Amino acid sequence: MIEVNPSFLQLPGGYLFPEVARRVEAFLADRPGERLIRLGIGDVTRPLAPCVVEAMEAACREMGRKETFRGYCEEANGSYGFLRAAIAASYREEGIAVAEDEIFVSDGSKSDCANLGELFAPEAVVAVCDPVYPVYVDSSAIAGRAGRYDPATGRWDRLVYLPCTRETGFLPRPPRARADLIYLCSPNNPTGAAADLELLRAWVDYANGQGSVLLFDGAYEAFVTSPGVPRSIYAVPGAEACAIELRSFSKSAGFTGVRCSYLVVPRALKRGGVSLNALWARRQSTKFNGVAYIVQRGAEAALSPRGRRETGEAVAYYRRNAQILRAGLAGAGFIVHGGVDAPYLWVETPPELDSWGFFDWLLRRSGVVCTPGVGFGPAGEGYVRLAAFGDAEAAEEAVGRIRQALL
Amino acid sequence: MIEVNPSFLQLPGGYLFPEVARRVEAFLADRPGERLIRLGIGDVTRPLAPCVVEAMEAACREMGRKETFRGYCEEANGSYGFLRAAIAASYREEGIAVAEDEIFVSDGSKSDCANLGELFAPEAVVAVCDPVYPVYVDSSAIAGRAGRYDPATGRWDRLVYLPCTRETGFLPRPPRARADLIYLCSPNNPTGAAADLELLRAWVDYANGQGSVLLFDGAYEAFVTSPGVPRSIYAVPGAEACAIELRSFSKSAGFTGVRCSYLVVPRALKRGGVSLNALWARRQSTKFNGVAYIVQRGAEAALSPRGRRETGEAVAYYRRNAQILRAGLAGAGFIVHGGVDAPYLWVETPPELDSWGFFDWLLRRSGVVCTPGVGFGPAGEGYVRLAAFGDAEAAEEAVGRIRQALL
Repeated sequence: MIEVNPSFLQLPGGYLFPEVARRVEAFLADRPGERLIRLGIGDVTRPLAPCVVEAMEAACREMGRKETFRGYCEEANGSYGFLRAAIAASYREEGIAVAEDEIFVSDGSKSDCANLGELFAPEAVVAVCDPVYPVYVDSSAIAGRAGRYDPATGRWDRLVYLPCTRETGFLPRPPRARADLIYLCSPNNPTGAAADLELLRAWVDYANGQGSVLLFDGAYEAFVTSPGVPRSIYAVPGAEACAIELRSFSKSAGFTGVRCSYLVVPRALKRGGVSLNALWARRQSTKFNGVAYIVQRGAEAALSPRGRRETGEAVAYYRRNAQILRAGLAGAGFIVHGGVDAPYLWVETPPELDSWGFFDWLLRRSGVVCTPGVGFGPAGEGYVRLAAFGDAEAAEEAVGRIRQALL
Repeated sequence: MIEVNPSFLQLPGGYLFPEVARRVEAFLADRPGERLIRLGIGDVTRPLAPCVVEAMEAACREMGRKETFRGYCEEANGSYGFLRAAIAASYREEGIAVAEDEIFVSDGSKSDCANLGELFAPEAVVAVCDPVYPVYVDSSAIAGRAGRYDPATGRWDRLVYLPCTRETGFLPRPPRARADLIYLCSPNNPTGAAADLELLRAWVDYANGQGSVLLFDGAYEAFVTSPGVPRSIYAVPGAEACAIELRSFSKSAGFTGVRCSYLVVPRALKRGGVSLNALWARRQSTKFNGVAYIVQRGAEAALSPRGRRETGEAVAYYRRNAQILRAGLAGAGFIVHGGVDAPYLWVETPPELDSWGFFDWLLRRSGVVCTPGVGFGPAGEGYVRLAAFGDAEAAEEAVGRIRQALL
């Protein structure tokens, strides 16, 4: 009899968002017709940029003519040269040199950050933030790297947890403990904080000192505006010897339903004399067949000057929402973090309420759906996350409703 | 210092198709301008069906309007209900009952067949055909299930090899040895043979008897025409308790550059009391974010009555190519297998030539590119694979050139 992967059986059943959905449903069963304002899930709502739609429509038509039809993407790294060239050019504009053969295109950062674990020995010690984007933890658990789960503490016994609390500025600091594979995310999901150059330098020093590898998830880099906040880990000299950077079109160009991301594995990144770039190329050519031609043309268009302008409008729109929520909630007396260089606000719960308590309060008193911070990890207790991806009118109304509820 | 996954380091360097490409390049360097007929790689060449292009263009436009924009696919199993319903309906037409929540949509069968291994314990014994589609072997090796590779024999010491030779009808028979996870492919790549009901029943009996799991790769099911050759493993009663079936739009609808596949994990399939359907749902929700909305609309269109008609024309076109090649080569004195219910022909090499020798002969004497059978495994020695995915004129010309070369 074949045995199932025992690591799967340890995964705690209730994922965060299903529980949120359950409570919302129960609420709506009580009060049918109530109009909710959903600031919970981090999904975009603005339509695709016109130039992206045009490029993808044109690519569809190309696929319908024999002369211009494309089959398997036989080019390197799951992608066509035109897209890798556009990505390399966008890095150059940031002052960062990335070669085209260091770029790998994929269907999403979620897949990438989960799959990258395959490159390393099963014994690798994984470090994650607390609170954290759950995919880093769950995929490490599936790979058998998390150890045993303790439902009482909500922690796995083989993971190194990096607290992201008020004391640490809601960002992770290098630990005393040894960690081999470190998931960093800046601007951070869920805390909305963004690392400065000094903090990134501390991480690069740590990783190069220990021989660790940093997986730098830059899914929200398009939201950075503050001076001194780098959008890329490669702004730190030496990062090319220790860091893999993931980026996505999901939030920068509204591609959550289109599916395109990329990552950089520098040629300088070697461990035990082995090139991780070559290893990832082998992994991808064995287990992945590249991204749809149509989607790659859409991504290319998003990186064009016109695409930057058009997608930039949506990002600016979400940023204004974050400002509305931030100012409105602060004005109502809440302590609000994040929301400056990130689409997420990390709001302290009132002293008498925990994360789920404040979630219920917001839902029942104002019809606003948030995400309880504790759902992202034990250190998220005492916070809720608000996402700025909705309509501007909804953000205004949410603030008004919450102020009303406080009266 | 983090260690890399040691299983990666054992993967033999030279993948088959790069070596084919190298020899072709060397040939063209000698004879610049020579017009080659490429019957090597199994990639489609006919354009997408008009109804698929129209559906995808319409979906692009929907994504460009706020009212119809779609973000993350929040529906079940990486896909929208409309596509799962269309897939379930197409199974019903075959007389097979598959529930919508047993269907999972993904970006390709290559990803799926490689990722499915994650559901099982690391100790699971994997069985593969010899010759074989290399992804089954390489992904098992990356997962640490293949053991040690012996370059002298071209075999891994922990895999169970299922010979697909003239003696076995170029299809695998259940082994005496224990095998937990068995990769079956029918119609077969590379041999072009297709299993009848009796052989599939033998496999279902074996798997249910041993508690094994069959991964049934039906990527080429659209090519089946012979009576008595089932397109689905679920034609065998009891298969729902032991088999996962993979299907793809790549060859049936020309989606190699569009990327869409699906698989069925029956609810009845449990091991150690654990539902593999629930396990795969958890795997996919953790490590995958679904297939592009645009692509899912294209796949839905391919399954519509009009889509069946239009995509059926391309399949019929390739099937005619296979007949041209089959009849032509047999008429020239070669012994040809496959090519009836599959787009692949499995041609015996002349007695004095091995696989690579016949590859070189075909290339140098007729400008025809094939794939050496030994590249798919030791038991492929003495054969080459021809693919029928090119132009009809090219198939005719290939036959003519080979006949000429024999003179």
